[in-house]
Amino acid sequence: MYDTKHHGRTDRSASNDNLSFVLNKPGDVSYQPRPIPQLDPHDVLVHVHYTGICGSDVHYWKHGQIGKYVVKKPMVLGHESSGVVVSSGSNVTSLAIGDRVAMEPGIPCRRCTRCRGGKYNLCPHVKFAATPPVDGTLTKYYALPEDFCHRLADHVSLPEGALVEPLSVAVHIARQADVKPGQSIVVFGAGPVGLLCCAVAKAFGAVDIVCVDLSESRLEFAKSYAATQTYRPVRLQAQETAEEILRTCGLSEDGVDVAIDATGAEPCITTCVHVLRTGGTYVQAGMGKPEVTFPIGALCRKEITVKGSFRYQEGDYSLAVQLLSQQRVSVKELVTGVVGFDEAATAFRNVAAGQGVKTLIRGVGIIDTTKD
Amino acid sequence: MYDTKHHGRTDRSASNDNLSFVLNKPGDVSYQPRPIPQLDPHDVLVHVHYTGICGSDVHYWKHGQIGKYVVKKPMVLGHESSGVVVSSGSNVTSLAIGDRVAMEPGIPCRRCTRCRGGKYNLCPHVKFAATPPVDGTLTKYYALPEDFCHRLADHVSLPEGALVEPLSVAVHIARQADVKPGQSIVVFGAGPVGLLCCAVAKAFGAVDIVCVDLSESRLEFAKSYAATQTYRPVRLQAQETAEEILRTCGLSEDGVDVAIDATGAEPCITTCVHVLRTGGTYVQAGMGKPEVTFPIGALCRKEITVKGSFRYQEGDYSLAVQLLSQQRVSVKELVTGVVGFDEAATAFRNVAAGQGVKTLIRGVGIIDTTKD
Amino acid sequence: MYDTKHHGRTDRSASNDNLSFVLNKPGDVSYQPRPIPQLDPHDVLVHVHYTGICGSDVHYWKHGQIGKYVVKKPMVLGHESSGVVVSSGSNVTSLAIGDRVAMEPGIPCRRCTRCRGGKYNLCPHVKFAATPPVDGTLTKYYALPEDFCHRLADHVSLPEGALVEPLSVAVHIARQADVKPGQSIVVFGAGPVGLLCCAVAKAFGAVDIVCVDLSESRLEFAKSYAATQTYRPVRLQAQETAEEILRTCGLSEDGVDVAIDATGAEPCITTCVHVLRTGGTYVQAGMGKPEVTFPIGALCRKEITVKGSFRYQEGDYSLAVQLLSQQRVSVKELVTGVVGFDEAATAFRNVAAGQGVKTLIRGVGIIDTTKD
Amino acid sequence: MYDTKHHGRTDRSASNDNLSFVLNKPGDVSYQPRPIPQLDPHDVLVHVHYTGICGSDVHYWKHGQIGKYVVKKPMVLGHESSGVVVSSGSNVTSLAIGDRVAMEPGIPCRRCTRCRGGKYNLCPHVKFAATPPVDGTLTKYYALPEDFCHRLADHVSLPEGALVEPLSVAVHIARQADVKPGQSIVVFGAGPVGLLCCAVAKAFGAVDIVCVDLSESRLEFAKSYAATQTYRPVRLQAQETAEEILRTCGLSEDGVDVAIDATGAEPCITTCVHVLRTGGTYVQAGMGKPEVTFPIGALCRKEITVKGSFRYQEGDYSLAVQLLSQQRVSVKELVTGVVGFDEAATAFRNVAAGQGVKTLIRGVGIIDTTKD
Repeated sequence: MYDTKHHGRTDRSASNDNLSFVLNKPGDVSYQPRPIPQLDPHDVLVHVHYTGICGSDVHYWKHGQIGKYVVKKPMVLGHESSGVVVSSGSNVTSLAIGDRVAMEPGIPCRRCTRCRGGKYNLCPHVKFAATPPVDGTLTKYYALPEDFCHRLADHVSLPEGALVEPLSVAVHIARQADVKPGQSIVVFGAGPVGLLCCAVAKAFGAVDIVCVDLSESRLEFAKSYAATQTYRPVRLQAQETAEEILRTCGLSEDGVDVAIDATGAEPCITTCVHVLRTGGTYVQAGMGKPEVTFPIGALCRKEITVKGSFRYQEGDYSLAVQLLSQQRVSVKELVTGVVGFDEAATAFRNVAAGQGVKTLIRGVGIIDTTKD
Repeated sequence: MYDTKHHGRTDRSASNDNLSFVLNKPGDVSYQPRPIPQLDPHDVLVHVHYTGICGSDVHYWKHGQIGKYVVKKPMVLGHESSGVVVSSGSNVTSLAIGDRVAMEPGIPCRRCTRCRGGKYNLCPHVKFAATPPVDGTLTKYYALPEDFCHRLADHVSLPEGALVEPLSVAVHIARQADVKPGQSIVVFGAGPVGLLCCAVAKAFGAVDIVCVDLSESRLEFAKSYAATQTYRPVRLQAQETAEEILRTCGLSEDGVDVAIDATGAEPCITTCVHVLRTGGTYVQAGMGKPEVTFPIGALCRKEITVKGSFRYQEGDYSLAVQLLSQQRVSVKELVTGVVGFDEAATAFRNVAAGQGVKTLIRGVGIIDTTKD
Repeated sequence: MYDTKHHGRTDRSASNDNLSFVLNKPGDVSYQPRPIPQLDPHDVLVHVHYTGICGSDVHYWKHGQIGKYVVKKPMVLGHESSGVVVSSGSNVTSLAIGDRVAMEPGIPCRRCTRCRGGKYNLCPHVKFAATPPVDGTLTKYYALPEDFCHRLADHVSLPEGALVEPLSVAVHIARQADVKPGQSIVVFGAGPVGLLCCAVAKAFGAVDIVCVDLSESRLEFAKSYAATQTYRPVRLQAQETAEEILRTCGLSEDGVDVAIDATGAEPCITTCVHVLRTGGTYVQAGMGKPEVTFPIGALCRKEITVKGSFRYQEGDYSLAVQLLSQQRVSVKELVTGVVGFDEAATAFRNVAAGQGVKTLIRGVGIIDTTKD
Repeated sequence: MYDTKHHGRTDRSASNDNLSFVLNKPGDVSYQPRPIPQLDPHDVLVHVHYTGICGSDVHYWKHGQIGKYVVKKPMVLGHESSGVVVSSGSNVTSLAIGDRVAMEPGIPCRRCTRCRGGKYNLCPHVKFAATPPVDGTLTKYYALPEDFCHRLADHVSLPEGALVEPLSVAVHIARQADVKPGQSIVVFGAGPVGLLCCAVAKAFGAVDIVCVDLSESRLEFAKSYAATQTYRPVRLQAQETAEEILRTCGLSEDGVDVAIDATGAEPCITTCVHVLRTGGTYVQAGMGKPEVTFPIGALCRKEITVKGSFRYQEGDYSLAVQLLSQQRVSVKELVTGVVGFDEAATAFRNVAAGQGVKTLIRGVGIIDTTKD
């Protein structure tokens, strides 16, 4: 069917067999046939095999909105996907039919100042999967430019490939933080992004990697996964918490080199500043309340650098793929459930209820082989 | 008296003729004779000619404390000074008797990680003039290492030399902000530091330099001095203020490259984040409340970089001296009053009452020549 | 004729009235009608008004080859151009008919690692005007994407606009060198690029700007234009020349912060390394012999950084336009001749003979108004 | 004898029992008693346990000179040492008697622009062990400031501690190269520094680490040690060698991210430039001929960055110690011989003859325990 000789703008648009998981309005999802997308000359068509459920997907499913992004018409969900190339545009040179790829879900304009300057994650014109009004990847066939498909090494599975998206988020965070060999780091939050930040920091050569979370079981997992130390806050006075982290983890009382907040919670954000050494760097990764109380005096006196981290830019996805390929980061441990495409709605409910670390949804026509 | 052949550790400590302006406790100042300091081999002794009054001096005078720094025993005030070298230690090579110098008031330990790594402003062992318990420069003779004395060009006056300290603060801020040619910048606050930030930004090649302040007269001065545009906030909803600044100043609605807060006021800090373009940089310069409500969501989404700025590091003082020498920055306009050493107490009261931009105190034995 | 309502892929290709100045083979040029280019949706069509003659144009004209780039079929010459927008594609938003623009002559692929990473000047797929086999801008109408057209301020003339190309080269060099306020710099070569490097270094805040050249008259011009000091080498022992430059120009014997070679000549390149302070930066701008004898020992011991500089990347053209607009750099002085389109061949001969600093060729149909 | 209560400037200078290995003039060495050094308040006295022989030691032994550094009076050799603290000055706080330390051999002035700016390796006033006229560490007791002694973890042996010096050289090189996770790198030279560069690059996350050398046995060792690929040049046309390296090692024909030359040989230096991708970085580590033929055209066109690397700066020694402590780099494999202090002369001869990778000399009074 996906004859490489007859791809392109010709006939696939007539077909309507592209089954998709669609958010109609908050809380209302359904399976709908959609047209198979036409390919631009630089595009490939990917048969989606696995898609992870992200907190933002769940948020749209529940609330129909994140900040200024509002679901105004039915939108296909999903943006953490891997799949297999089934067709390619006439100018595609880097990929072949059958290639297994991680799919980078945000396509920038390539023409604005940000794109031209190397920060395409800040492109105001980006089309990002499952950010309204752009359809997501919980669909059978998805088209995207070849340079946004990242080929997986043979020994990296497609379920692992679906984890490249959150891993790229963590790579971008670690790069924003400029994590260097020998450094000490505190990561707030032991959800998928926080855990992956620990793993990437380790791959970048960080020596002391403290994971902080309120859940003892999450911390146990973090310790077994990538953290070298863990800390569970007992009270939330930030300055004292910071001192306790340093003391109980055997770190210098001068503070750590890098702090990452992957929670968005105010006490964590405040503690980030206090736990840093003078001249340290704190990266804000998680989105929570739009405004928090913030220790600006300590930031100024200690000459802290704070950076936001938003999605991923050139080199993040390719490094994520490479870290997996080189087995410097492992993501298998984070997959706590894989369900069929027809179970997507149930899976969303379970994730919304806080179950598991990362749940994957198999693509349309993908059979449960237990080990892909 | 200051025989270059007989300087050093020998006899000056016996002398008690070093008249100083001493803060005994909050609100209680007096003139006291102090010993003339002995010189280490790398030190010079400077006859202090002019000293500017800084907000921190006034704060100690009124409250006896800034944050963790508490005046527990009588302390000489003053740290913005210029003077003339009158004696030098045995190893001094870069300065000669009679050299006119700006005096850098913080002497770091030179041995800690921060000092060795090029950030001596973050040295935890620094001895900073008029930060308790270290005596300040409102004294006749002051000793400091030769590398912390910066020779003034012949055409730069000693009163201007006293302004090198706040100018170095502004240079450090502009460097933390990495102000580059062609950039747009908003500076909050039209006090001495904010004004000097505008002037340094201009010298660094910034094109649009917006100064924001509540006082119309200060803004008029800012416009005549170094700002290219000014803005007086009419209400303090930060997002709207940011949009109005951009609109009324004819700037791109994408936002500016750099924002500097030299006020410490919460509405200004919040507006800094909102007025920036994606990927922009905001530097916190002024110290106000230790904690403020902060738009962390916008910081994250826009990938803003925030940096504290604390005093000055290698190269800041020397560049400040050079900017004056090259007439790329002018500071004369900021001097709104010069009083004799015996009028120091009155001058402090007037500054505390908000009079003038920058008041200088002449050193002991320095005569009012109107034009030094 | 260039009706904005009827632009695009329709009918212009039928027209053959696009008079062009074509290099057929080395030394053999002719005027030929060419088709008016069709516009992609993001393209504009520019009526070329002025084109500067660059050394590379002359080199192709004489030798038909620069390095691996060989003229194998007739090619339109020219790449330093300004003009007026006469038509625009359907997606163009930033430009209007009648806009006066500087034309950036290299269109990258926007998809490779270099493009995505912010270094489109290193795109291996770039189509660069008058680099074989891509036709240049010595033609009546030239099409290029809107983001490669840079609008000129009203008070910047179109002849000045043609100088934006070499000015952007100099901006890129100064950025590669990371020229900072207060720095000292030596520029080797007083041709157009060397002179513009001096001017840009001054705009970036450099304080000592030494121009080195063998021609006394060029040095006189350099001094009147942007150099603060000049030096004419009397013998070419690099280490001694470096010491003499520092001594005769009153610079620290420690060496200068930045050295730029805009000659490609071996003695200049060697002197660049010797004239630098430890930790200094030398940027190679001019192309000369592919290999030179190089003082690698001094580079290592002094921890010099050497950088190549190739064309321009995001932000260079826009800053060049802004420096002109803000009158921080002036280029008028460099224009030593303006000839009509029909005199292009003569102009090439004169430039090849070393006449003048920068010669401009008026576009087809542009009348000599003396002051454009 | 080293009573902590009675250290300091008092009586040790009277003692003459500090046996030292002294280079009297080229080829002429002898054992001589020297005074035990007096301690400044921040100094510690170290009983030297192990000292590695470096190529520069051998060079002084043979030629009495390296570049401008000439042995004009007898000088103790040695600068790659570890030992045990036996006494400390009155202001020492970070070390205790009995601490096992790696000894950083270059003490900068702490006052010049380079020192203040974070580049103490470029201090023109540095006193570097066994660089004339400063005595080296092949002596029983050696004094140095506490911040230049780096405590070893319990599980790191003193022989390993002696390797911290060349490891710090490699750390500095890798930092100059800014080696980042996922990068590809070619290291020229499989001597101690080249091998350690491979190991540090691996610890920094480099993925492809090609070691190039003429000796097959060295390459075998490199492969077993830290290189992922090796290459033995068969002919020395640099451009072709570069292409062959990329092809035979299965690397992208675009070139590698980083090239390091640890040989000083002209063909290697030239190949560094050709083997790099556009925008890549080449660091010159080894000192060879002062001048070489260099492909400046390729450097310019590819926008290569070249950096010298000289000794080590703040953070290099501490990271080297940490890499050993964390077992991210192993140095034991490089020790191919350990001899007694009385065999130093023989050891120098053997090293000069090219024997082994790294030979250590036990300190005065240190017994061969086979496993320290």
